[in-house]
Amino acid sequence: MELFRVIDIAGTVAFSIAGAFAAMEKKLDVFGIFIIAFVTALGGGTLRDVLVGEEPVKWMRDLSPSIVVLISTVAAMLFTNTIKNFHKILLLFDSIGLGFFTVLGIQVGINHELHPAICVALGTMTACFGGVIRDVSLNSIPLIFQREIYATACVFGGVIFYVLKMTEVPKFALEATCIAAIVALRLLAVRFNWRLPSV
Amino acid sequence: MELFRVIDIAGTVAFSIAGAFAAMEKKLDVFGIFIIAFVTALGGGTLRDVLVGEEPVKWMRDLSPSIVVLISTVAAMLFTNTIKNFHKILLLFDSIGLGFFTVLGIQVGINHELHPAICVALGTMTACFGGVIRDVSLNSIPLIFQREIYATACVFGGVIFYVLKMTEVPKFALEATCIAAIVALRLLAVRFNWRLPSV
Amino acid sequence: MELFRVIDIAGTVAFSIAGAFAAMEKKLDVFGIFIIAFVTALGGGTLRDVLVGEEPVKWMRDLSPSIVVLISTVAAMLFTNTIKNFHKILLLFDSIGLGFFTVLGIQVGINHELHPAICVALGTMTACFGGVIRDVSLNSIPLIFQREIYATACVFGGVIFYVLKMTEVPKFALEATCIAAIVALRLLAVRFNWRLPSV
Repeated sequence: MELFRVIDIAGTVAFSIAGAFAAMEKKLDVFGIFIIAFVTALGGGTLRDVLVGEEPVKWMRDLSPSIVVLISTVAAMLFTNTIKNFHKILLLFDSIGLGFFTVLGIQVGINHELHPAICVALGTMTACFGGVIRDVSLNSIPLIFQREIYATACVFGGVIFYVLKMTEVPKFALEATCIAAIVALRLLAVRFNWRLPSV
Repeated sequence: MELFRVIDIAGTVAFSIAGAFAAMEKKLDVFGIFIIAFVTALGGGTLRDVLVGEEPVKWMRDLSPSIVVLISTVAAMLFTNTIKNFHKILLLFDSIGLGFFTVLGIQVGINHELHPAICVALGTMTACFGGVIRDVSLNSIPLIFQREIYATACVFGGVIFYVLKMTEVPKFALEATCIAAIVALRLLAVRFNWRLPSV
Repeated sequence: MELFRVIDIAGTVAFSIAGAFAAMEKKLDVFGIFIIAFVTALGGGTLRDVLVGEEPVKWMRDLSPSIVVLISTVAAMLFTNTIKNFHKILLLFDSIGLGFFTVLGIQVGINHELHPAICVALGTMTACFGGVIRDVSLNSIPLIFQREIYATACVFGGVIFYVLKMTEVPKFALEATCIAAIVALRLLAVRFNWRLPSV
């Protein structure tokens, strides 16, 4: 579907830029910045493909996501301040990416006939583990383990997905609702500073 | 075998609780605590499955280990102090898990007709690399690289396994002896504070 | 080819020793030192095999690289100072390894009929990601992300590879030139302290 293609690209752009900014803060060189942007955007999907056994992994079979990462990274380096002024749009793209990659992961799980709970886990990993690999590579404890409502939004969206799946809702509406639910929860969490408890 | 099923669960419980406690010390949120517990308990087996090509990896094909991790993590968060009072039982379970997961990894290697030395490495990885991933994610240098007799116990047990395999010992006795050797060496090492040399 | 076999071993020796030295600096125990040496030498190839789906991964099918790592690590621990006196030879071996592993990775990509850009990425990963895993495990930000001309040399060699491939150059000359280009750029970068810019 053409719309999902646009969403895919918007999400990849937002994830790449988030990765590039994190790498620039740590004073990496241009090569390191690109690798961290790449890992942030495509690391979750790569882990998903490896765990279910879809190899060569997706970005090896299709060059376009790598190109999107490359262009986004160059833009992030050249227009750092301009882009930072658009942080609200970036947050929106990031949330949309979060939702879209979750649905993508769930679909891969369904194609492999995995249990719904595993599919939701796979969707969440697809959306979130790029950020985990980024943080671990940059020598920080992953952000998403520290009270952010981030992975939680993916799990929430995944549950909505399976609740709706039991009804007659057509596939497109199902996926769109799941993405919308994740975007909504993520934006509300940022807006109202919702956090998960620690112990 | 029913006994091995019980041992498997005891080991998964001990590994999950160790992971959850490490995550709680680093003040992660409840989601992060669960992920670290999961990675500690199932990360070694996941790496094993990925390296030999058994995909989708085991925890995607069978929901029960994930459920054991979930329950153990909730217990670790709710009854932290009570559980810490039973640290000797935890150590025993942990050692039994170490032995059992080593045997499990060796068996996977044998099924793939790998060289005995590789099978022992695979068993050791199954038992130990969950802890490595946990420590790296929590931004520490892995504990098992720092003079603990831990992975060494797995290697020792693996050697015993192959020495006995050359005799007429039946499979069950073989595996039980291997597990017992690992448990014994691990407990002795903790008791007498045995350590590996550094250089 | 016999020559390539020698180069393979020289590279594995140099990578293992680099890994062992890094681990010794962090005061790991003998087991940890071996694991870090192993990961440095064979981690890049392992990641490559996992991403393209060649499983069980190479070091599980052939014991000889593990033996080379083991001997190199023992030598690094026993003759630390002597070896450090030969740091120029080590640098040469390391550069040759860098070139050779890049070509190896490109060939694996070609066997899987991947796009040239992906093959170059695969070659670079084969040569460089062992060092990344080493640094992340030792709790440092990977060296190659910090202005070193290292991965860049692999990318440069990969481009040379594909430029020559469009001509009638025979396969052996193609591979030898690619390795030589990487060695030359790496040595020049070290000699003249060339660095990548950060942002």
